[in-house]
Amino acid sequence: MKIINSIHDMQTFSQQQKSDGKKIGFVPTMGFLHKGHLSLVEEAKKRNEIVVVSIFVNPTQFGEGEDFDIYPKDFERDKEMLENMEVDVIFYPTVDEIYPKSYNTYVDVYGVTDKLCGASRPGHFRGVTTVVSKLFNCVLPDNAYFGLKDAQQVVVISKMARELHFPVNIVPCPIVRESDGLALSSRNVNLTKEQREHATVLYKSLKKAEEMIEDGCLDANQIKQVLKDEITTYQEARLDYIEVVDFDTLEDVKTIQGKTLLALAVKIGKVRLIDNLIVEV
Amino acid sequence: MKIINSIHDMQTFSQQQKSDGKKIGFVPTMGFLHKGHLSLVEEAKKRNEIVVVSIFVNPTQFGEGEDFDIYPKDFERDKEMLENMEVDVIFYPTVDEIYPKSYNTYVDVYGVTDKLCGASRPGHFRGVTTVVSKLFNCVLPDNAYFGLKDAQQVVVISKMARELHFPVNIVPCPIVRESDGLALSSRNVNLTKEQREHATVLYKSLKKAEEMIEDGCLDANQIKQVLKDEITTYQEARLDYIEVVDFDTLEDVKTIQGKTLLALAVKIGKVRLIDNLIVEV
Repeated sequence: MKIINSIHDMQTFSQQQKSDGKKIGFVPTMGFLHKGHLSLVEEAKKRNEIVVVSIFVNPTQFGEGEDFDIYPKDFERDKEMLENMEVDVIFYPTVDEIYPKSYNTYVDVYGVTDKLCGASRPGHFRGVTTVVSKLFNCVLPDNAYFGLKDAQQVVVISKMARELHFPVNIVPCPIVRESDGLALSSRNVNLTKEQREHATVLYKSLKKAEEMIEDGCLDANQIKQVLKDEITTYQEARLDYIEVVDFDTLEDVKTIQGKTLLALAVKIGKVRLIDNLIVEV
Repeated sequence: MKIINSIHDMQTFSQQQKSDGKKIGFVPTMGFLHKGHLSLVEEAKKRNEIVVVSIFVNPTQFGEGEDFDIYPKDFERDKEMLENMEVDVIFYPTVDEIYPKSYNTYVDVYGVTDKLCGASRPGHFRGVTTVVSKLFNCVLPDNAYFGLKDAQQVVVISKMARELHFPVNIVPCPIVRESDGLALSSRNVNLTKEQREHATVLYKSLKKAEEMIEDGCLDANQIKQVLKDEITTYQEARLDYIEVVDFDTLEDVKTIQGKTLLALAVKIGKVRLIDNLIVEV
């Protein structure tokens, strides 16, 4: 397994693979890997001769007062995990490499970035779309793998890739959960033991909403109310948002129909957790 | 020579060439070609096995009330000129192909786009950087050729390509002029005969300024005054801007030193002409 730090070396490697007719699968990560990331790597290995995983904690997608400074890191552990999975390359650039001195270029997707996490984290998606554009240009993948835990991120990046005509196929992958239902996240490690136990409230509430929808309740407001009631059974949980939206446009729906996203963001202590569930009616 | 209309066919063609180890040179144009464009094609032919010329009048770089509707077009003539030069591909997409329904993704370079043409044409450079990003992703060039008549465009696109890490080498090429000094432009065709004769005032004023600088006058304000006095000798000429700026940052300079851009935009009748000269002190 190669560890590549420079953009030039990364591009040279990828161009060589492509001229050898090999497909490149790409898994962008911020490191501190868990089984969710590894499921993306597994998916990438199925359809690509070469798999590149980037590890880059992207400063521009964190807002003022967010958890950039305490974002967990453990490169040696990540490296071992990826080596065990027979990944071909870790792309591990510095911040200065990705954001050259006096950089002032941004990629923005408007509309779908205004709501959900975009509303509560202004500037977040600009950071995401800008860094993903950069990483695509560094790694030159054929396929790129994103977890559906960040469902809005999948929608935003798919739209960006399609509209800027990146020659990259975006592959959304299902959420990986702990046995008790908590969606895997690098941030879970920042929960106390007690918070961790109660954090299952996100998934439980989503499952309850899903059941109601299956039983014929299609009123979005009623569903939101149920989600709210369930989550607030845990006193330490502070709601950031509860949304019921069309999966493609992320527009609010009144009546659930077609592919619909139930999305939550909840703060437990200092940790902001997100989770979601897609229903198709 | 192939004429390719679809993005998918363009990408497939380029990926095939790259996997055959061939370098792709790219000349983006808005059509109605002149010797300026052809000089870019010639340059591209020197260092690339494959040369792609795009013809696309990009609506998003024209402002309200600008000349999008009257921008000259003659595809058959363009095609013949490019066939004669043994160009490999004309990429000739429709507006709907490049801007899919409900598109809402933009690439922006801030700072260097605020001044010169950016100040008088708000939104112009957003249109340019967005479309060039799209075209790069369609054509996948190794080298891309831009004329220095749009000097600010060269600065902006170079910055964008560098900061988004496009694996594309930006090659600036010298201005091509008529024998009387007028910089070639597709827009020149919209000048009346009398306007055309007087349009040389742009180049003449720049040459006079250059002479003064060579004679030791390094005061930017004095140089601007000379440019203004010269241009306004032609009564129909209405100044848009006269700027003396650092070539890399496009920041105003007080005293000319290093690589400095003298840039003009002048309206003659309905036609907006730009010209410039780079001095190195």
